[in-house]
Amino acid sequence: MYQQLKAIVLDANLLLPRHGLVTLTWGNVSQIDRERGVIAIKPSGVSYEQMTIDDIVVVDMDGRVVEGRLNPSSDTATHLALYSAFGSIGGIVHTHSRHGTIWAQAGRDIPALGTTHADYFYGDIPCTRPLSEGEIADDYEKNTGLVIVEEFQRRGLDPLAVPGAVITGHAPFCWGENALDAVHNALVLEEVAAMAFSTRLLNADIHLDQALSDKHYFRKHGANAYYGQR
Amino acid sequence: MYQQLKAIVLDANLLLPRHGLVTLTWGNVSQIDRERGVIAIKPSGVSYEQMTIDDIVVVDMDGRVVEGRLNPSSDTATHLALYSAFGSIGGIVHTHSRHGTIWAQAGRDIPALGTTHADYFYGDIPCTRPLSEGEIADDYEKNTGLVIVEEFQRRGLDPLAVPGAVITGHAPFCWGENALDAVHNALVLEEVAAMAFSTRLLNADIHLDQALSDKHYFRKHGANAYYGQR
Amino acid sequence: MYQQLKAIVLDANLLLPRHGLVTLTWGNVSQIDRERGVIAIKPSGVSYEQMTIDDIVVVDMDGRVVEGRLNPSSDTATHLALYSAFGSIGGIVHTHSRHGTIWAQAGRDIPALGTTHADYFYGDIPCTRPLSEGEIADDYEKNTGLVIVEEFQRRGLDPLAVPGAVITGHAPFCWGENALDAVHNALVLEEVAAMAFSTRLLNADIHLDQALSDKHYFRKHGANAYYGQR
Amino acid sequence: MYQQLKAIVLDANLLLPRHGLVTLTWGNVSQIDRERGVIAIKPSGVSYEQMTIDDIVVVDMDGRVVEGRLNPSSDTATHLALYSAFGSIGGIVHTHSRHGTIWAQAGRDIPALGTTHADYFYGDIPCTRPLSEGEIADDYEKNTGLVIVEEFQRRGLDPLAVPGAVITGHAPFCWGENALDAVHNALVLEEVAAMAFSTRLLNADIHLDQALSDKHYFRKHGANAYYGQR
Repeated sequence: MYQQLKAIVLDANLLLPRHGLVTLTWGNVSQIDRERGVIAIKPSGVSYEQMTIDDIVVVDMDGRVVEGRLNPSSDTATHLALYSAFGSIGGIVHTHSRHGTIWAQAGRDIPALGTTHADYFYGDIPCTRPLSEGEIADDYEKNTGLVIVEEFQRRGLDPLAVPGAVITGHAPFCWGENALDAVHNALVLEEVAAMAFSTRLLNADIHLDQALSDKHYFRKHGANAYYGQR
Repeated sequence: MYQQLKAIVLDANLLLPRHGLVTLTWGNVSQIDRERGVIAIKPSGVSYEQMTIDDIVVVDMDGRVVEGRLNPSSDTATHLALYSAFGSIGGIVHTHSRHGTIWAQAGRDIPALGTTHADYFYGDIPCTRPLSEGEIADDYEKNTGLVIVEEFQRRGLDPLAVPGAVITGHAPFCWGENALDAVHNALVLEEVAAMAFSTRLLNADIHLDQALSDKHYFRKHGANAYYGQR
Repeated sequence: MYQQLKAIVLDANLLLPRHGLVTLTWGNVSQIDRERGVIAIKPSGVSYEQMTIDDIVVVDMDGRVVEGRLNPSSDTATHLALYSAFGSIGGIVHTHSRHGTIWAQAGRDIPALGTTHADYFYGDIPCTRPLSEGEIADDYEKNTGLVIVEEFQRRGLDPLAVPGAVITGHAPFCWGENALDAVHNALVLEEVAAMAFSTRLLNADIHLDQALSDKHYFRKHGANAYYGQR
Repeated sequence: MYQQLKAIVLDANLLLPRHGLVTLTWGNVSQIDRERGVIAIKPSGVSYEQMTIDDIVVVDMDGRVVEGRLNPSSDTATHLALYSAFGSIGGIVHTHSRHGTIWAQAGRDIPALGTTHADYFYGDIPCTRPLSEGEIADDYEKNTGLVIVEEFQRRGLDPLAVPGAVITGHAPFCWGENALDAVHNALVLEEVAAMAFSTRLLNADIHLDQALSDKHYFRKHGANAYYGQR
C-alpha cells in the first residue's frame, strides 16, 4: 500500500552509509505522507547492508505500526513530534555523524562561520537545552522532539530556513522538504560542523558577516534565488 | 577439532582492517570456549591479507598451543588474564586504533560525553595505572591484563557494562559476549574516543548528564531494553 | 564549436570529486580561450556524476552564453574578473575544500610553513579583506574577483607565483596556466592548508625560512629549475 | 642489468600511494646494492599511475646515471649522503605524509608517547637543525642528508634503532634494511606522528615510560625478541 513512500525512505537511509554519516546501525531517515497521515521509517537496529523495502515500517501519527513486520526506529516518537509541530517539513534524518555530534556533546550551537553554512542554514544551527530528569524518564524520545520545537519557537526560527539542530549530549537531527532533501542537509551539517570546529581553533572570535549570510542564503532560496537551473 | 571457533575468530580478525581499526599487523581478536578450556587467537605478526583459518592458533588456559603451527599473538597472556578474571566475557579485541590510543597515550579515561558512548559503555572508559618496572620486566603481557582487572575491581565495574579499557602509554583492549561483539565494541570505542577528543577541545568542562547516560544504556541493555528487534 | 575546450573543462571538473575536493555540487572549474575571447565553465548546481560535455557552458567575457543550454556557474563573474585582471592565467578552480575553507572562515592567510607549500606557492596564500555591504549587495560575484585582484596588487604578487587565495568568510579560489594546472594547485592548497592548521597548533610562532622558500620554489620554477623531466 | 633491484624499488614506490603516504608525485623510494655500488631510485616528477620498471633510474654513488633514460629524483643526493654515512641501511623513503610533515614544519621531534612508537622507533624521532643559508644555496639536497647524519651522531643514535627523522621546515625521511622495510617505517612514522599530535593536545606534559619503551622495542628487536614467527 505504501510501496512508493517506503522505496524513497529505503533509498534515503542507504545514502547515510554512502555519505559516511553513520557507523554500524546508527541513524535513521523517515518521510511523511501528510494526506494519509503516516510516516515511513527505518526499522530499529537493522544493518544497512541487509535492509530491504520490506523492512521499512509505516506508522500512523500516534506511532502505531500500520505496515511492516519489524519494530520502527526507537527514535520514531522524535520524528512524529517534529512532523506535528513543523507543518512544512516532509523528511527527517537522525545521525550520530562525527562532527555534528561533537557540537551536540559540547552543548554548543554550530556557529555560522562561512558561506558553505549560509548556503543551506540561515544563521547558527541551534543546540537544544538539556532535558530535565522527568523529561528523560518518561516519553524521552517524544521530549527530544519537543525540546527542538521549543528552541525554534523561542528563537523564532523557520524550520525550513534552519533545517537542523543538535541535541545537547546527543547528536544532530536534520529535516527538509522530503527525505532526500533531509539527507542532503544532514551531509551539509556534518561538513560545516567539521569546518566550524577547526575555524574556531584558529580564530576563537570570528563570526560570519550578516550581509554575507543573507547574500548566500537568498541567492539559493526564495523569490530572488539565482543559483542552479531555475 | 576447533574449526567453528577458529572460523569465528578468523572472521572477527578480518573485520579489523575492514573497519579501519588496524595498521599493518597490529591488533588481534580471540574467543574462548569455556567448556573445553581453550581460546582461539590470531597468530603473531601475520598479515591480514594472507591469514587463513589454519593460521589461527588454539591455546589452553596456561597458554600452551593445542592446535596450530604458528606462534599465537604476543598478547595472548593478556587475553588469558582477562578471560580468567572476567567470567562473563567470551571475546577480546586489542587494537592500536588511532583515537583510542590517543587517550591511552595521554593516560586519561575516555570520558562519557554523549549518548553514542552511553549506548554501549556505562560511564567513562577507564585508563589503567602505569605498570611498575617489575611488572614490565617479568610477565609483562599477563600484568597488562591484571592491571585492567585491578582497575575494574577498584572502581566496582561490571566488565559487560563497560566492555573496554585503555592501557596507559599503550592502546585499547575491548571485549564482549563473543568475538564479534568485542569487535563491535572496539569500533564504538574508537568512534567515541574521536568524538570525546574534539568535544573536549571545544568545551573542556563538559560531562554527560547521569540521567541521560542511564536512559541510553538501559534502553539497549537489561530487562527493560526496547531498542532493536526484541 | 568549442568541443576541445569543453572536454578539458569537463575533465578538470571531474577531477574535483576524485581528489576529494568537493561535497555535493560545490566547486567549479573553467578555462579561457583568450584568442576567441570565451571561457568554458561548469553549469550551476549540476551533479558531477551526471555531468556530460554538453552540460559545459561557454560564455563570452561579458558573461553572455555563447554555447550550451544550461545556466553557467553562479560564480562565473568571479572567474571573468580574474581572467580580465590576470592576463597570464588560463584556468580557474573554486572549491569549498575543507581545510582551505577553514583558513578563509578564520579570515587568515595560509602561512608558508614548509617546503610542500614553497614548491607551489611563493609565500603566504593571501586572505582577502571583507567585502563592504555595498559590494555584497550589487555584483557580489564580480566583486569577489575584484577583491582578490586588489589584494594581489596591494601586495605586489605575481598570480602565477602565488596561484590561489582564500576569500574571507567563504572559500579558496585557485588558478594556473590551464584548468588542469589550476586543479593541481587547488589540491596542493588543500593539503598545505591542512598541514598549516596542525603545525600552528603545535607551534604557534613558527614560519618558514625565506632561503628555504626560495630554494624550493626556484628549483621547480623559472630559468634555473632542475625538478622533473626537463 | 639491474632488473631485480629496479623491480623492488618500483614495488616499494607504488606502496606509497596505496598507503596514503603521498599526494601527486611527491615522495620517492630507493634501495642500494652495496656490492655493485649503485642505488635504484624513482625518477623525478613522474606520476605513480604511469610508472613502469623502465622509469626507475640507477645511479652510482656519485649520482651519475648508469641505467635509465629519465632524471633521477631531485632528492637523490640526500639518499646518497645517508647511504654513505649509515652503512647498515639498505632502503630509504622520503614522503610529505601529512602528520610527519606537521612535526617537521613545527621544528619538533616526534616524541615517543606510546608502545606503537616504541615497537619501531627506540626513542624520539629527531628533528634536524635548520640549514644555514650557505647549506641551502649550494648542495642543498646533499646537505639535507648530512644534517640528518650530524643529528644522529650528536645524539649517538643507531640508524636502525631510530629508522627515520624529520627535516625542519620540510618533511620526513625514513629508512630500513631494504626499500620495503623503509616504506613500512614511513607508514609507522606517519601513524605515530598523528597520534602524538593529538596526544599532546590532550596532555601537553606526557612522555612514555622508559621501561615500557625498552620492553616494546626489545620484544620485537635483537637477541631476545619474541614477537612474530621466529
